[in-house]
Amino acid sequence: MSRAEAAGTRKGRRGSTPSSKKRAKTISQHLIGRLEGLGLRHVFGIPGDYVLGFYEELCASSIDVIGTTREDCAGYAADAYARVAGLGALCVTYCVGGLSVVNSVAQAYAEKSPLLVISGSPGMNERGRNALLHHKVRDFETQRDIFEKITVAGAVLHDPLTAFRDTDRVIDAILRYKRPGYLELPRDLVGMTPLFDHETASEKPTSDQAELTEAVEEAGRRLGQSKSPAILVGVEIHRFGLQDDVIAFAEKHKLPMASTLLGKSVVPENHPLYVGVYEGALGKETPRQVVEDSDCLLMLGTFITDINLGIDTANLDPRHCLVATSEDLRISHHHYHSVLLEDFVGALSERKMTIAAPKLPERAKAEASPFTPEPDTAVSVRRLFEKIDSILSEEMVVICDVGDALFAGGDLTVRKRTEFLSPAYYTSMGFAIPAALGAKAADPDCRPIVIVGDGAFQMTGTELSTIFRLGQNPIVFVLNNKGYTTERFIKDGSFNDIGNWNYHRITELIGGGWGFDVRTEKDLEKSVSAALANRDSFSLLNIHLDPYDRSDALERVARRLGARLGVVPPEDGANE
Amino acid sequence: MSRAEAAGTRKGRRGSTPSSKKRAKTISQHLIGRLEGLGLRHVFGIPGDYVLGFYEELCASSIDVIGTTREDCAGYAADAYARVAGLGALCVTYCVGGLSVVNSVAQAYAEKSPLLVISGSPGMNERGRNALLHHKVRDFETQRDIFEKITVAGAVLHDPLTAFRDTDRVIDAILRYKRPGYLELPRDLVGMTPLFDHETASEKPTSDQAELTEAVEEAGRRLGQSKSPAILVGVEIHRFGLQDDVIAFAEKHKLPMASTLLGKSVVPENHPLYVGVYEGALGKETPRQVVEDSDCLLMLGTFITDINLGIDTANLDPRHCLVATSEDLRISHHHYHSVLLEDFVGALSERKMTIAAPKLPERAKAEASPFTPEPDTAVSVRRLFEKIDSILSEEMVVICDVGDALFAGGDLTVRKRTEFLSPAYYTSMGFAIPAALGAKAADPDCRPIVIVGDGAFQMTGTELSTIFRLGQNPIVFVLNNKGYTTERFIKDGSFNDIGNWNYHRITELIGGGWGFDVRTEKDLEKSVSAALANRDSFSLLNIHLDPYDRSDALERVARRLGARLGVVPPEDGANE
Repeated sequence: MSRAEAAGTRKGRRGSTPSSKKRAKTISQHLIGRLEGLGLRHVFGIPGDYVLGFYEELCASSIDVIGTTREDCAGYAADAYARVAGLGALCVTYCVGGLSVVNSVAQAYAEKSPLLVISGSPGMNERGRNALLHHKVRDFETQRDIFEKITVAGAVLHDPLTAFRDTDRVIDAILRYKRPGYLELPRDLVGMTPLFDHETASEKPTSDQAELTEAVEEAGRRLGQSKSPAILVGVEIHRFGLQDDVIAFAEKHKLPMASTLLGKSVVPENHPLYVGVYEGALGKETPRQVVEDSDCLLMLGTFITDINLGIDTANLDPRHCLVATSEDLRISHHHYHSVLLEDFVGALSERKMTIAAPKLPERAKAEASPFTPEPDTAVSVRRLFEKIDSILSEEMVVICDVGDALFAGGDLTVRKRTEFLSPAYYTSMGFAIPAALGAKAADPDCRPIVIVGDGAFQMTGTELSTIFRLGQNPIVFVLNNKGYTTERFIKDGSFNDIGNWNYHRITELIGGGWGFDVRTEKDLEKSVSAALANRDSFSLLNIHLDPYDRSDALERVARRLGARLGVVPPEDGANE
Repeated sequence: MSRAEAAGTRKGRRGSTPSSKKRAKTISQHLIGRLEGLGLRHVFGIPGDYVLGFYEELCASSIDVIGTTREDCAGYAADAYARVAGLGALCVTYCVGGLSVVNSVAQAYAEKSPLLVISGSPGMNERGRNALLHHKVRDFETQRDIFEKITVAGAVLHDPLTAFRDTDRVIDAILRYKRPGYLELPRDLVGMTPLFDHETASEKPTSDQAELTEAVEEAGRRLGQSKSPAILVGVEIHRFGLQDDVIAFAEKHKLPMASTLLGKSVVPENHPLYVGVYEGALGKETPRQVVEDSDCLLMLGTFITDINLGIDTANLDPRHCLVATSEDLRISHHHYHSVLLEDFVGALSERKMTIAAPKLPERAKAEASPFTPEPDTAVSVRRLFEKIDSILSEEMVVICDVGDALFAGGDLTVRKRTEFLSPAYYTSMGFAIPAALGAKAADPDCRPIVIVGDGAFQMTGTELSTIFRLGQNPIVFVLNNKGYTTERFIKDGSFNDIGNWNYHRITELIGGGWGFDVRTEKDLEKSVSAALANRDSFSLLNIHLDPYDRSDALERVARRLGARLGVVPPEDGANE
């Protein structure tokens, strides 16, 4: 696994150098060369006639193309790949492909995942009189217009004068803002060459030095005066590769670190200074106290979102907060507009300062208790997660789908850095299975542990087909509670019930993999052992749960969401 | 089955009248009442917290809510429902739901299907300071902005002054233009009442009478002078409910009728005047001659699209064409801008005129030959379609997915009117299985025959789960050629191969239905008999085919698509 930014100068296997001027490259060669140069090894997608020409060139390069069963799964897989490797890409055909990844790409936008969307489109030479070519919706700009709403930069590569520079611009924007970008290539221009020599010249953004100096001085002064400084780590610290800096800073000054749900595992959760996931009143008490009682809270790369911050229950006094993200640096009530996140973190680390080491909270034990099964007892959510917690090792990456998979998953102890993936802000169901495909491709040494609800599994679970084809070996826990249980606690009704599949028998449809029907703790114990031993294919555990069983975390979240909807009165007094 | 327009005055089971002023209705009651009044009996969708309030009201109404496994399947099902019943609707939550139906709705837009998209959204009271609520992408307008590109009308119902009128406006536009519309309802406004009494007042569009008179006179004159008049029927004749008028007109003057692929079955295919599907040089010879040799071709409700018209091989002289659609009326090279399709067809039918009855081509036999199996022979595409042709009856609706399912399906003889459903223009894979769900809901008396490729089945085939839950009994033929065979004939490569599922064993995953593994004609014969007899659940036939076997129709289409791409030289001389 290598972060693409760090690999910016690495040559692809074909040895192409991005800025070579020796011979004019075609736009396809230029684009593929840039991606190879950034260390990209896989692209996800489905071919179609408008993109077949580019597909062929892609397949001939050092980049592997992984075909998925559906385009949206390619989107989720590429998103997960990007979260792990620092850059991801998908390649689809016009409209029927592109418009099928809108939701996946929107999620990558919302959660800041650096993802490139490549789409073929009708040739410029066949667009006369707005002809009704297949896959076209309203006009030839429809797809581009839609992606403009969910990407940070985009271009239709229809002009040899600008196409090469536009390609660089879009890639640079993706890497800078950690958000999706869009490139559309008309199929008759796959082989176009530049009108003039093109040299890639990326302009690095810089901070305003005077602003940076003032901001770091102010931060240092406030930290120096603080009696209870603390750090709240968000997901951008991972996206910008700043984990080591933040951890070194915390260690130097002995500062306690909490994380948001989206940022879970950015700091290894068994780190001595780590206190847990902060989720306002919905989360555990220790991180809540450390964060909310701090008189100088350094929020680094933290999204201020509802689910991420305990659905309105976060009780943070802005006067005590220093919030540094890629978009803004805010100290108390004022803003610095021209300070980059990485520069702020870097300058803060280097600055000499004396901070009173705060009293650290009692350490929760870092090691999970061994799980002792009660053989004939039906599996409950609480016990299931105790079991999962007991098997997590450094090689594993935990991937949680939406619902109790996410909320209970937030309480797991992930022992390796950056290896908890979930759509904790945008919360689109169906992310986890295709994300496992992408995560494993990005990091062949990892082993995905997938936790997914039955509703989410019915959306994208058949992507196990591709996982099987590639010989990947995730362990999949399907929380089979026969419906949308999170919603049952918000507003109950038969619309929350879904068909009860024999999830473990998907192996018969796909033609491989191991499946287990799990009803008791004895079943759970045996099947988890078998799954851990099976390193050659995926293993799926169909965990039968009571439709109204849920984790403590889900109960709190659902009650809060229901209260916001105005249908369930809150119960727990003033703080709710 | 009733067409919604015709049912405009029908009362819902709750007896609500759309224009009742007695007591102020809430916006939800108004919207649901309008839909009930238009005869809508089903809505497809998946609930989510931003739409739960409206969902509850919907479930309490006369309208059944059918939950699908994925949102895009709800889109395809509602689209098919609309094609059969004259109006369809889907209901989803904000962004994670709405952005997942973009491709389905785009297809409905491209192929003119009257479909209402209802989406919940965050309450207006929780949107302060552009808060990062879950499911939000960029800003609160992102979803609306995207749907603006793929709908004919839309509104966010956030203002009690305009919400009721906007609801009527969007519904009216859907019915008038036969294209999707979009309504977004913030969840805190589900119960809002109008500021002033609201009365539904739909304004019917009208033709300019002088234009209409001149156009019909000119058409009559041209038809009167013609030696070989003919009619080419398109899908809009179905959408606007004009089949009876067109057929009566053809019968009165003994005019031969061909149809486009998208318009296939708008005229019953065993009608004595029907000559077949016209697809330029790609289709059969008889309809080609009738259409291209006509010196006065009446194209009624016909889209001029590429696949629909033989991928550039249509050889139509504009001077001999009269093209009437909902968007334009063109005679030779001039246009009438203010003549409605229905008025033109109506006036033409009523007008007294003498047309020389052209010589009709030799009748192709209307009845299929009985199929005599060669027991040990492996099933081929040609023989499979002969078998399917032999079992089609009046109760059946044929639903074809993309690829050879569509191209070979075009040659089937569909004996009932309007019962061939396919995405013949936009050609998005994955339509057929969820469309079967929608078609059966719209017309409980029909029996869907679904023809679907393996690639398309892997996209949405698990929607059989819902079909099973509802006790529907389609017969599904999966063309299992282990990949994207249409593309194999355009540009071959391993990217066209997909995992080989045991499609017939999906019954084990879902927990019901009948599945058959079909390799020989004997297998085919036996399993089709069993499937026909099984009226209680779906039957799925996994038809093993050679990866390079294809119908004559597909071979012609693929060669033409490849030629357009510039990679496969055309073979058949000048006309290609």
